[in-house]
Formats: sequence, C-alpha cells, structure tokens
Amino acid sequence: MPDPAGPASTPAAGGPSALTGVIPPVCTPMTPDHEVDTRSLTRLVDHLLAGGVDALFVLGSSSEVAYLPDAHRRAVLDTVVGHVSGQVPVLAGVIDMTTPRVLDHARTALEAGVSGLVATAPFYTRTHPEEIRTHFRLIAARTGLPLYAYDLPVSVHTKLPAALLLELAAEGVLAGVKDSSGDDGGLREVILGRGPGFSVLTGSEVTVDSALWMGADGVVPGLGNVDPHGYVRLAACAGRGEWEAARQEQERLVRLFEIVRVGGTRMGGSSSGLGAFKAALYLRGIIDCPVTAPPQVPLNDDEIARVGKHLAAAGLL
Amino acid sequence: MPDPAGPASTPAAGGPSALTGVIPPVCTPMTPDHEVDTRSLTRLVDHLLAGGVDALFVLGSSSEVAYLPDAHRRAVLDTVVGHVSGQVPVLAGVIDMTTPRVLDHARTALEAGVSGLVATAPFYTRTHPEEIRTHFRLIAARTGLPLYAYDLPVSVHTKLPAALLLELAAEGVLAGVKDSSGDDGGLREVILGRGPGFSVLTGSEVTVDSALWMGADGVVPGLGNVDPHGYVRLAACAGRGEWEAARQEQERLVRLFEIVRVGGTRMGGSSSGLGAFKAALYLRGIIDCPVTAPPQVPLNDDEIARVGKHLAAAGLL
Amino acid sequence: MPDPAGPASTPAAGGPSALTGVIPPVCTPMTPDHEVDTRSLTRLVDHLLAGGVDALFVLGSSSEVAYLPDAHRRAVLDTVVGHVSGQVPVLAGVIDMTTPRVLDHARTALEAGVSGLVATAPFYTRTHPEEIRTHFRLIAARTGLPLYAYDLPVSVHTKLPAALLLELAAEGVLAGVKDSSGDDGGLREVILGRGPGFSVLTGSEVTVDSALWMGADGVVPGLGNVDPHGYVRLAACAGRGEWEAARQEQERLVRLFEIVRVGGTRMGGSSSGLGAFKAALYLRGIIDCPVTAPPQVPLNDDEIARVGKHLAAAGLL
Amino acid sequence: MPDPAGPASTPAAGGPSALTGVIPPVCTPMTPDHEVDTRSLTRLVDHLLAGGVDALFVLGSSSEVAYLPDAHRRAVLDTVVGHVSGQVPVLAGVIDMTTPRVLDHARTALEAGVSGLVATAPFYTRTHPEEIRTHFRLIAARTGLPLYAYDLPVSVHTKLPAALLLELAAEGVLAGVKDSSGDDGGLREVILGRGPGFSVLTGSEVTVDSALWMGADGVVPGLGNVDPHGYVRLAACAGRGEWEAARQEQERLVRLFEIVRVGGTRMGGSSSGLGAFKAALYLRGIIDCPVTAPPQVPLNDDEIARVGKHLAAAGLL
Repeated sequence: MPDPAGPASTPAAGGPSALTGVIPPVCTPMTPDHEVDTRSLTRLVDHLLAGGVDALFVLGSSSEVAYLPDAHRRAVLDTVVGHVSGQVPVLAGVIDMTTPRVLDHARTALEAGVSGLVATAPFYTRTHPEEIRTHFRLIAARTGLPLYAYDLPVSVHTKLPAALLLELAAEGVLAGVKDSSGDDGGLREVILGRGPGFSVLTGSEVTVDSALWMGADGVVPGLGNVDPHGYVRLAACAGRGEWEAARQEQERLVRLFEIVRVGGTRMGGSSSGLGAFKAALYLRGIIDCPVTAPPQVPLNDDEIARVGKHLAAAGLL
Repeated sequence: MPDPAGPASTPAAGGPSALTGVIPPVCTPMTPDHEVDTRSLTRLVDHLLAGGVDALFVLGSSSEVAYLPDAHRRAVLDTVVGHVSGQVPVLAGVIDMTTPRVLDHARTALEAGVSGLVATAPFYTRTHPEEIRTHFRLIAARTGLPLYAYDLPVSVHTKLPAALLLELAAEGVLAGVKDSSGDDGGLREVILGRGPGFSVLTGSEVTVDSALWMGADGVVPGLGNVDPHGYVRLAACAGRGEWEAARQEQERLVRLFEIVRVGGTRMGGSSSGLGAFKAALYLRGIIDCPVTAPPQVPLNDDEIARVGKHLAAAGLL
Repeated sequence: MPDPAGPASTPAAGGPSALTGVIPPVCTPMTPDHEVDTRSLTRLVDHLLAGGVDALFVLGSSSEVAYLPDAHRRAVLDTVVGHVSGQVPVLAGVIDMTTPRVLDHARTALEAGVSGLVATAPFYTRTHPEEIRTHFRLIAARTGLPLYAYDLPVSVHTKLPAALLLELAAEGVLAGVKDSSGDDGGLREVILGRGPGFSVLTGSEVTVDSALWMGADGVVPGLGNVDPHGYVRLAACAGRGEWEAARQEQERLVRLFEIVRVGGTRMGGSSSGLGAFKAALYLRGIIDCPVTAPPQVPLNDDEIARVGKHLAAAGLL
Repeated sequence: MPDPAGPASTPAAGGPSALTGVIPPVCTPMTPDHEVDTRSLTRLVDHLLAGGVDALFVLGSSSEVAYLPDAHRRAVLDTVVGHVSGQVPVLAGVIDMTTPRVLDHARTALEAGVSGLVATAPFYTRTHPEEIRTHFRLIAARTGLPLYAYDLPVSVHTKLPAALLLELAAEGVLAGVKDSSGDDGGLREVILGRGPGFSVLTGSEVTVDSALWMGADGVVPGLGNVDPHGYVRLAACAGRGEWEAARQEQERLVRLFEIVRVGGTRMGGSSSGLGAFKAALYLRGIIDCPVTAPPQVPLNDDEIARVGKHLAAAGLL
C-alpha cells in the first residue's frame, strides 16, 4: 500500500473513542452436563488476550447466547469481566426479543461492569422501522453505555438499513454496528456515511481484509476463538498497509473456516458451526470439553477428527 | 347438519383427556408505566370466564409475551392461576429461543401451578428438524406437563410439518398443537393423522367454523379477548351441528377482526393487532388503560375511535 | 345443511356470470422426448369432461406451464380449445414475468379462442402494489377477456392482499381469483368483501369442502386430473347442502393427495407433485407416458409403484 | 500494491480464455410507446465502447430482460451483435423459468452470434440442487457456448452455493459466474476454489475494488451504463496494483449509485433503479427517452432532476 493516505487513516474516521481491531465473540465452554465451565472460560480468555485481541465480546451468537439461561449469562459476564480486569474492553450481547427483556439483560451487564452493549432489532414479533428506532433509543437512554447494533438477518429476519443506522448514529444513539449480514455493499454505505466516533465492525470471518480496506474499524470473527493470532496478524498487516500479507493471512483463514460445514446436512448451521469452534478449542487444549448446549446436535468422532485435519492444515495443531 | 356421525364425533377422536373448546390467549393489561395491571387482568379473566370459555392460555403472542420481562411473566402466571383457582385449565406459554431458556420458564410455570405448557420450535438460531425433535422431547421429559406445540411461522420462521407433529404425538411427547400458521391444509393433515388424546387447536380468528368442521378440537383466538361470548356461541353451535348459525357468528367475527389493521402502515402488525385488542377491551370497560409494551407504536385517538366503530357495528358497545 | 339460506345461496353472491364448480388445471402429457402428446391430452380432456367438470384451466402450474416453450403452449391451447369445442369454458394461464411478456401469451390465447385468462403478479423483478395494479389493469384493458388473478406466493413470492383484489374487482379489472396461497383466512376476506360476478376459486386440493362452505364459487385442484369424479361429487354434495358427504369425499381425497410427497427429499416439490399426477394418469391408462419436462427429476419405478398403491387405496385402480 | 505476486497474478488464475474486465449489462432504450429504440441502443453501445469496456452483456436484469417480449429480445441481440461486429465479446442473458424455455432463448442468441450465455437457476417452480445441476448441464450440452451462471437470489429466490458452482466448473459445464448475490464471502469461496478458465464476475456496483482485490476477474455493473469510464479506470487501477486510486474511484461510484433510491417507497426497486439508470443516460444525451417498460412506475420530473444533481456531483454533466 504505497499511499500513506490509505487505510491507515481509517481510525481517524472512526474517531478517537471508536472501538477498533480484533474483538472475538467469546465461545462459552460447558461442562458435560451443560453448566458454564468457568475454568475453561478463563483459559479461553487468556488464550485470546495472549493472541493480542483488542477487546472481547461475550454473549453473542458464537457464545451460544440463544441457548444460555439467565444464570449462565450472568456467570459468563462475571467470569470474563472479573478475569479481564480492565485489560481490554468487554462488550456484552443483550440478545432478546424486545426492549423490556433486553433492558433486563442490560441491567445485569451494567452491574457486571461491561464497557458496551450489543443489541439486535426486535425479533419474534412483527416489527417496523419506527419500532426499531424506539428500541435502540430506549436502550441507549436507559443504560448510558455505548450501544452497538447487531445486524444479523439470518437470526433476526430484519436487515438494518444503512440509512437507519446512520440516522441513529447521528443522534448519538448508536456507537457502532456489528454487521453480520454478509452484505458488504451495505457495510460500505455505512462506512462512507458515518461520522467520527462510530465504529463499523464486520462479523465476517472471510472478508476481513476487504472490510478493513473499505474502512471498517474492526472485526468480530467467531473463528477468532480458534485462531486469534491469525486475525490479529491480519489486522496488524492491514494497519501497516501491508495488504498482500493481509490477504494471504485471510485466505488461510478462509480455508480454516471450512470447519463450520463439518456437520453437513444432518444438523443445523448453528450446531455445525458452534460445534466446530468448540471442537477446535478442545483439540487445541484450550477448553476441557467440546459439548454444545441442547437442542444442538453434537459433532460425532469422525466430524471432530475432520476438524482436527483442518487445524493441522492451518498449522494450529 | 343432519348427519349424526358429523363433527359431533370429533371429541371422541381427540380422546377423553384432550383439551377442547374456546381457549383465549389472555391479553396482558398494563399500567401507563408498563407494569402488569393485575386488577385489570383479573377483570379480564372474569370477563372471559363469564363468556364461558373452556380454558385460558396466558403468555402467548396475544399476551405480548415477547415484550414481558420474566418478573412480569411471573406476575401474570401468579395472578391468573390464583384467580382462576382451578375453575378451568390454565395453559402457559414458555416462549424463548432454545430449550435451556424454555426450561427456565417452564419451571416458573410449574411452580405457579399451570395445567399445560405451550412452546414453539427454537428460533433466532438456525435450526433443523432433528433439533426441533430434541427440543420438544427434552421439555416434555423435564416437566411432566402436557406439552402443546405452537406453530407460528410468522414469528419462528419455521413451519412445523404435519409428519413431525404426528411423530411426536405418537411418542407421547406432544399433547396437542396450537396451529397459527394459517395453513388449514396442514391443519387437516394433522387432524386426520392424529390418534386419541392429541388436541388440535386453531389459532385463527377467522376460520374457526371450518377448522371445527374439519375436526379441530378447539380454538385459541386473540380476538376472543374482545368477544369471548361470540367464540363460545360459535363453538357451541358447531358442537350441536348447527353449522349455518356457526358460520353467521364466524362471519360477524371476521368483520370485527378488521380492527387489527387499524394501525395501517405506520406501525408493525404486532403493534396494530395487539393495540386494537387492548383498545377494544379498554372501550368495553374491561381494562383501565389500552397501553402496549415498548417498542410498539401506540394507537392514536383516531385509530382508537375506529376500533370503537367496529365494536359498535358488532354490537359490543 | 338444514338451512336453505346456506351455501346454496353462494352462486347468487358470485353473480349470474361468475365461474363456478370444478375447474381442473389440465396436466400436459408429453412424449418420451418431451413433445406435447396431443393424443394423450385429448384423452385426458375426455376423462375430465366425463368426470363432469365445469370448465378447464390449461397452462397453469399443474400443466407444467413454467416448463413449456411457447410452441408447446400454443399446441396445448389449440388442442384443448379445439377438442372441447365450447362444451365448457376453457381458461388459459398467461404465466410470465411482466406485463409485456404476459400480453404476448394473451394474444396467442385470444387467437385460440379461450374464455378467460389467468395471470399472476409480476415475478423475478422486485415489484410493488402500484405496479401489480398497473399490471392487471393493462392485461384486462388490452385483452377484453375475463381476467383471473392467480395468487401463488410459493412461485411468485408476493401474496396478493385481499384489499388489492377487492379494489381491482370493484374496478371491473378482475373477474375472479384463483387462490393457491393456502391462506384460507385471506380467502374468506375476499369472499365476504366481493360483489356479484367475481369468482373466488380455491386452488387447494385439501380444503375444498371448507372453502365452498365459506362461499367459494369453485375449485381448481391439480389432483382433479387424477380423480375428477371425486371433486365433482364433492362439489355436488356441497351444492345440495350434504356437507357430511362432502367432507367424507374430501377426506378420501386428502389421503390420495399424499402421492405428491412420493419423491421425498431427493427432488423438488414440483418434480414430486407433478410427477405423481402424471404417474397416476399413466397408471389409470389415461396418458401414454408419465414423463415430466426437464430439469425435473423423474420418479423411479419404486416411487411410481407407491403412487399405484395410493390409487388402489382410493379405489381408482 | 508493492507486491508483484498480488492481484496482477489473478488473470493467470482465471486462465487464458477467461472473461475479464468491465462488462456492463447494457440498458435497453425504448421509444415512448415502449418499442426498442435501436438508434439510442447503438449510441449507448458506442458510449460503452468509447469508455473502454471489455465486453457487453445484453438481456440481463439491467436490460429490463424480464419486461422484454421475445421480439424485443431478438431486436436487442441483432442490433448489438451487428453494431459491435466482433470488437468485443457480447454475452446474452437467456432468462426464463426453466430449461426448455431457456433453450429457446439460447437458440435465438446462438443465431444472432453471441459469444456466451448467462442463465439463472430455474425460478417460479419449486426447485432442488439436483434440478439446478441438470438445468445447467442441459444448457451447456445443447448450445456449445460458454455458459455463465447468474446468481441473483433477489429475483430467483435460490442462492447458488459455492460447492455447486465449483462442481459444475470442474465438469466443464460452467465457464464462469456472475455473482449478484451481494454475498462477498461466497464470492471469495468460489475464487479460491476454482481452477483455470473459470471467470468470477461480480455484479456489484459498490464492492468492485474489493472483489478484484480478492481475485475476481471482472465486473458487470448496471451503473456502468452511466459511467463506463469510471469502472474502466477502477479496473485499470486495480490491474496496475494502484489500489488506493481504485478505492477512490470506487467511492465516487458508491456515491453516484445513490441514484437507484431516487424513487423511494412509491415504487419497487426495479422501477427506481432501472428508471434512474435510464434517466441518467437521457440527461447525459446518450438515449432519446428515459421511459421504462410497464408495469414499472416512471420517475417523475422531480426525481429525474435529483438524478441530474447526482450526475453533476459525480462530474458527469
């Protein structure tokens, strides 16, 4: 990248306080009877911090938040916020159907001492842009924490339009967006339209170099649990304008990402993807048990072995 | 209906223990600051019992369950179960994303003393038929209460196939289905395929006569909050084989049901429909305040007045 | 049905000129090399007329219209209109993406001498209610033939709202609707809102008794190719107010309709459903060859044998 | 881009015969009475060739192919192929519901002398991966021309999976893909998995720099009608490894692309987007009339004026 006005200038666009860098959505290790395995969880946090990540995002989709009862959510918050002790910011997902239920989760997260909240649009109910605006405005007003919109149409069944995000950003309601929509055209529209202090984070595992190239501030890759060093190298290369090296790192991670399809058609995409992340963490010796929450279908021995082959090919075993 | 082998024989198909009749999904009245208005709620329960309903369903979609924090859900359960004191069965919705979270709601409902549980397939996560089977099996095994599947594709984004329902019915996992899919062909397939003791309940407001005609055991109409007497008359006519009278009652209710569209395009369907039910209950003097939970858009005075005109036309004011 | 003001009065609602009764969507028999098999087609027409059907609908979805090149569509029109010679009305599907292409098909149909046209909303393009209105208005204005809207969201990915249908009916643009949406609540809304002369036809195979009970004027069942006598008996019973007999006939046809799932998950729903209809016509000796158009997956011998078992169970072999 | 092993090596991946560069989907200018305006069409072709484009794609979505009767499609083919006279390759869309209808269009295109065909998966029918494979195999086998898969889920309602594309590429059935899915993660999977001679073309207007950066071979932007010089500059910068300049050009085009939303909510996305392209071509003096085909809603004078402002801001007026 010969041009010094290139992506290196992007953090300036994000503003001094904007969240940047690699922010993995932390998996939630479980014991064989599906309790939160706090020892494995702190080892996982150490693994991520050792990898050089810039912040942590707990209770997102990759954390199996949809499967965690409130007591488990609270255990995760307390464990991670306590263990991190302010070394990096910790964001918390407050994932639930509507504002009043989200506010309950937000209160718990606030008490735990998180640095920011991540919320989707309402789901399950039939919603409307005006209701989505009210939803985010109420959460921001009642919590006082930086609020990040989580754009995940595959789960929420609503796409957050760029214009709505930019409107709420201009109002000061939103501090950023985690875009897991896969729509990099929409991502770019937000990047070019936002003002300072608004963080654009891609949730993609496989288009991180190009998202950073477009001016995104950071990345929240589920696969970052398995290989935080890889995503940190990728972001560092991008930060130094070494785009070819960034791309090669990204292409290695694209191949590693194939583990999420190891479960094939005999289970849902959540079972396969989250099961593969946990199998990889287990095979790498970071967590004690690869179990996922019910009603997910567990990976069988053959599938776990295939995850191992991908890890070996990626130089991670 | 001159033929004595007609719909009158349907209850036999449902079996001696099957749930039958009119089972309204009870609205959740709120105070102006969005707390559960327990005084209005008990008045609403009295209104429904006076209307002759056969059972009550609390914490369903028409109850704004998606908008109720856990404490409000518990308040509703305690208030209604306590007030009903066993006069009729009370079913409770246990609506959440996945099995572990649903089981938490089920424990609360069990403690409150409900007669049965109503659960959807997993949502928010990407799911699979095998996971849906595990989900219902675990809920049934862990609670011991009659379990009703709630088929609501508009919210859950999965349609429960007839074959899956019948398989779980044959296993003894499901005691019935509340079908709010609008797919009366699928409803009929379940009716013709089920064995004794499995209740088929339609969630439709507008095809109740035809569902009963096909052999459905009961009906769970949101509009039954507003006009329980109407639905009870409709079901009674059907039970006596007076199908023409049933149809005339149904057609009156179809016209009344137009209130759910009073909010037009300036709000979502949940805001408009639930707002209209509550406005009607308010105008009829049954609840103190027509407020709905955030982030729903409230009906304005003009829209409430139009609800009133529909009530007048239906002979309810 | 003891009440003389019952369904027997429905034809009056439909008006003197309204289309009523059983109107099967005629399958398109093919030779092994996928040409239109006009000999088999005329035999099929004779079979349907002998069954007592009230009209014929060619070039609908059950006719594999989506798979027929224009020359084949024309061959079907000429063969059927010529062979029928005015014994019953012949409606023609004019299925294509937008108005200008639909108008081309309409001109061909007009030349062939059909009695009415059946058109969907625009598809493939991103559309809008205003464009749907313009679409139907232009087709009606340019052809002068009775125009029936074809509501088939599974193919068109738009649901025609009742209000839009009623608006175009009131304008005189639409002569009726073929509702294959499966949404019998919406069907009822149209039935109760329409004026005289507007035909409401259900495309369902499995809720015909209830649709007629609600006041529908007729039925367009793909399965009517296989068993026209059954649907004609069903409609006749309904017309005489013998609803219990109508229901028993319908329930027999519901069981027969299971043939559409004979292909399971190894093919798409069109391949399985249309393949089963043709296999049944072949096994009944009405058409010479059960082949369907590419790229559909053909039924194998085992699947065809299972169609045969269903036919036997229905008393059709 | 200092690294010589960078994107400059991409053409090698695509192979010697692979299609590369800027390939605009040519708009179809119309007379006020909706006939093909062949004089304007040849002027538009000259404008694109003068802009330096590498090939032309006629009868795609931006050409209003869904609105063009067969005679108009033929007129477009004859006009463009004749006028181009082999200066650049001309690809033709053969957009229709299923294989037999697509083959009819393919025969016409073959006679006109095009260089390649572009086909979607089947639509309108309920389809299946096995049927999609058969569809593309038959088209390739029967025409002998290079066949490009058109991945456009917004129209076709099926996403072509990377694995399916790579399988058909390895078989020699597909010569490339035009990816208009907006899913750049899937695009990358195809890029990294394909062998030589398979062209990956993005249909995006707004992520062209990043698609080329990932290794895409070319771009098919509807907006390239309005500003071919811009896309040619963008691709040329990318080819020379001047990525920062490529990005600046892309960001200018992202802002220009806002014209597609000029119609707002009073029309569908096709009306607004295609109307804006034609309004821009009209304002730039390239076509005589901005009319679009029915039933699209035409842009009004105010909306056309706003297109003009965007053109001025982009330096195009």
